[in-house]
Amino acid sequence: MSEHGHHLTSDEFRRHGYAVIDWIAEYLDGVEKYPVQSQAVPGEVRARLPQRPPDQGEPFERMLADIDDVIVPGLTHWQHPSFFAYFPANNSGPSILGELLSAGLGVQGMLWATSPACTELETHVLDWLLDALGLPDRFRSTGPGGGVLQDSASSATLCALLAARTRVTSSPADIARCTVYASEHAHSSVAKAVRIAGLDPGLLRLIPTDAQHALRVDAFTEALDRDLAAGLVPAMVVASVGTTSSMAVDPVAGIARAARPAGCWVHVDAAMAGSAAVCPEHRWLHDGVDLADSYCFNPHKWMFTNFDCDAFYVADRTALLDALSISPEYLSNPATASGAVIDYRDWQVPLGRRFRALKLWFVLRHYGLDGLRHHLREHIRIAQRFAQQVAAHPDFELAAPAPLNLVCFRHVAGDAFNAELVERLNRSGQLYVTHTRLDDRYTIRFSVGQTRTTQRHVDAAWEDIQRTAGEMGQTQAHTGT
Amino acid sequence: MSEHGHHLTSDEFRRHGYAVIDWIAEYLDGVEKYPVQSQAVPGEVRARLPQRPPDQGEPFERMLADIDDVIVPGLTHWQHPSFFAYFPANNSGPSILGELLSAGLGVQGMLWATSPACTELETHVLDWLLDALGLPDRFRSTGPGGGVLQDSASSATLCALLAARTRVTSSPADIARCTVYASEHAHSSVAKAVRIAGLDPGLLRLIPTDAQHALRVDAFTEALDRDLAAGLVPAMVVASVGTTSSMAVDPVAGIARAARPAGCWVHVDAAMAGSAAVCPEHRWLHDGVDLADSYCFNPHKWMFTNFDCDAFYVADRTALLDALSISPEYLSNPATASGAVIDYRDWQVPLGRRFRALKLWFVLRHYGLDGLRHHLREHIRIAQRFAQQVAAHPDFELAAPAPLNLVCFRHVAGDAFNAELVERLNRSGQLYVTHTRLDDRYTIRFSVGQTRTTQRHVDAAWEDIQRTAGEMGQTQAHTGT
Repeated sequence: MSEHGHHLTSDEFRRHGYAVIDWIAEYLDGVEKYPVQSQAVPGEVRARLPQRPPDQGEPFERMLADIDDVIVPGLTHWQHPSFFAYFPANNSGPSILGELLSAGLGVQGMLWATSPACTELETHVLDWLLDALGLPDRFRSTGPGGGVLQDSASSATLCALLAARTRVTSSPADIARCTVYASEHAHSSVAKAVRIAGLDPGLLRLIPTDAQHALRVDAFTEALDRDLAAGLVPAMVVASVGTTSSMAVDPVAGIARAARPAGCWVHVDAAMAGSAAVCPEHRWLHDGVDLADSYCFNPHKWMFTNFDCDAFYVADRTALLDALSISPEYLSNPATASGAVIDYRDWQVPLGRRFRALKLWFVLRHYGLDGLRHHLREHIRIAQRFAQQVAAHPDFELAAPAPLNLVCFRHVAGDAFNAELVERLNRSGQLYVTHTRLDDRYTIRFSVGQTRTTQRHVDAAWEDIQRTAGEMGQTQAHTGT
Repeated sequence: MSEHGHHLTSDEFRRHGYAVIDWIAEYLDGVEKYPVQSQAVPGEVRARLPQRPPDQGEPFERMLADIDDVIVPGLTHWQHPSFFAYFPANNSGPSILGELLSAGLGVQGMLWATSPACTELETHVLDWLLDALGLPDRFRSTGPGGGVLQDSASSATLCALLAARTRVTSSPADIARCTVYASEHAHSSVAKAVRIAGLDPGLLRLIPTDAQHALRVDAFTEALDRDLAAGLVPAMVVASVGTTSSMAVDPVAGIARAARPAGCWVHVDAAMAGSAAVCPEHRWLHDGVDLADSYCFNPHKWMFTNFDCDAFYVADRTALLDALSISPEYLSNPATASGAVIDYRDWQVPLGRRFRALKLWFVLRHYGLDGLRHHLREHIRIAQRFAQQVAAHPDFELAAPAPLNLVCFRHVAGDAFNAELVERLNRSGQLYVTHTRLDDRYTIRFSVGQTRTTQRHVDAAWEDIQRTAGEMGQTQAHTGT
């Protein structure tokens, strides 16, 4: 065995650890030199890797060099301040270091007993977030409800559906009669959860939306009544607070008032938008959430916290535990038996769980609520400014209201032109945007939220968009297409 | 806003980053000074935390100080070399730094297009592991199969079940007739997956085991035939290669030969034991895996890779994609449309995913296969030595064969004595063991696998066990109980 096959000494760990810290500092400082979207073609990264794993250990320096040579060219840089695609997945210094500490401690949080601090810090920080976002007390751990960190809003939606399904069914045969409701613009994770949970995908009702792409309560009520009359079992409705496509905000209160008499679970998915509620002026986003059975948002999207970190709350944890609790002998312990503790294994799909609350705790303490408000307001301000510029330009139009940090727009020249515009912009490497369809038209999504995105980056993007569209227009004029 | 509400400068990040690296180096070097199991009582950690999140940001130094003051006393130290409880969740320098780098890069791997290197390195390293563990080519990504990293074996089992369920059902109503098979000692995640997937928990057949606690093929075949005759639909059988309770190895080949004619999916769960197959002399563990539809093991248990990191393979990825693929417009892209790339969002429950392959790549390259073999063989050697000592002691007996790194044993004085023994040992803080039930008797589990566990730690544990049992015996002799 080579010397490199040994466990690192603490001196070696420090030396390599400092090198990785330096590497990250330089990467984040210099990320603007890279094309935002990777220019790699399929197979390009693999072609540079040895066919077989090494028999002999290798020096750490070689691995770090390969990060530069092999990995970085294959990355799309989500921490690039000109990343306007999909949704932000912004990280930050305190979050990165919280994740590092979690890896170093290497503890398991599946049970309270397997590391009490891992569970208690998580519960506590999730209660903190209720105060931070003005969320209702019914989600507080000191009552019948409580919060838990999931890896993603997809998993939160699944857990909500499992709790809802358990609440309305008394036998497995009932499951095939369960209906689920969500807006036609709700996230794909709703359909995925329906399939995973064994419900009939044909009984997922995608409810029509209004002119603002928000779920129509009248259409939901109609669907609900029709299903009830047909002897079906309404299990859950998902209200999106900020849809992925267009940041449309479904009317949570109206949805909940219609759903509750039918025994239908109300889940609120505020994956990206929820963070904005740290600012009192955006608390309107949470109107009606006090009537919901569950709620989630992702600090890993727009709150400077590394993926994965989804905050999921239930008003009544009994339904969740009924759906997910299984207690084998090899996990039994006095604390669990006492009933005085939370065992988060019963709040999620996997059994094991790492110490995810650390990074969130570090972020909340490093920035403070005032710091978070400052940065989110700045993102919203520059997104709004961009929306106004788009709206004022004769060749562009807004495709949806832009209440926060997502601007949906299109060039007036039609679908093919917009698709080509997006491809050219992304190929330039100067910025990265993605698209959706709204009102059956190709629509460009411009999502502002990377940690270091400033007005300069948005202004440059707007210049690029106008210039590229202008060049395309001239080409088309010349070729007559 | 206080100065601390700002994003860290790169100089600040380096300074705090070095401090965290130093903290981890000192923690891992000095971890033996802590009681292995936290002595905290419920609520103790929370009581030391402020009721509300701070409005103003705090200096990083204060957070790091709170790790020592508030968090560490509430930790059970999974990286303590005298941690013999549950299963190992061993970390290592290269793994910690790989996780750090992943957090620093902050990229998303949900699609190939969202960071090609994230997907391609994962696929590649999973192919490497086939060579490393002598696993069959049918799981290689270059054929119809392939591998993916899941967070846990629980999620792998769930995904296998979803693929299996999709393969054998043609409508949601069929789901209620699906049967699932596993040994009575299989992991609780099988029962959890059955519930999540909407199957009838009453149709989970827990098959009796033989004297070695391994699944009896004859009993499985009988159950299968009975269910087929009753018109039920055998969906999946789970073969455990190393059960959680006792490291029993189910006869995979016999199970597969019985299951396959019935169209029943064969999933092999080698969560902890799989790592041992890096040593050619332990490849017998994988006998019959060439007949399985899916397989998983956890590098995050016994391969020096931080949780979470489960390697999950399928022989035919079509069934998995059929179960989990959903393609909304806002995720459509040319690479996906070309069919030339893997989009791992369709191989798992969540949508988002972080760059988990980095830490595994670092571990495989730092240690090399020879290095991994060296460390695993040493763990197995000292566990075997411990098993021999237990077997040779008149007051103790082995409760199961101990082929690898888990030793199940008990004192001859009965259940109450053993339970009290475990409680005293754990309260001492000198070591941490957990228990199970085998043959309806309380059984102590002694699991060797923490990165820095050496013979010295196991010898000391054996001394503690004998001494504590001796003291208890004297007390009982005095009090006549």
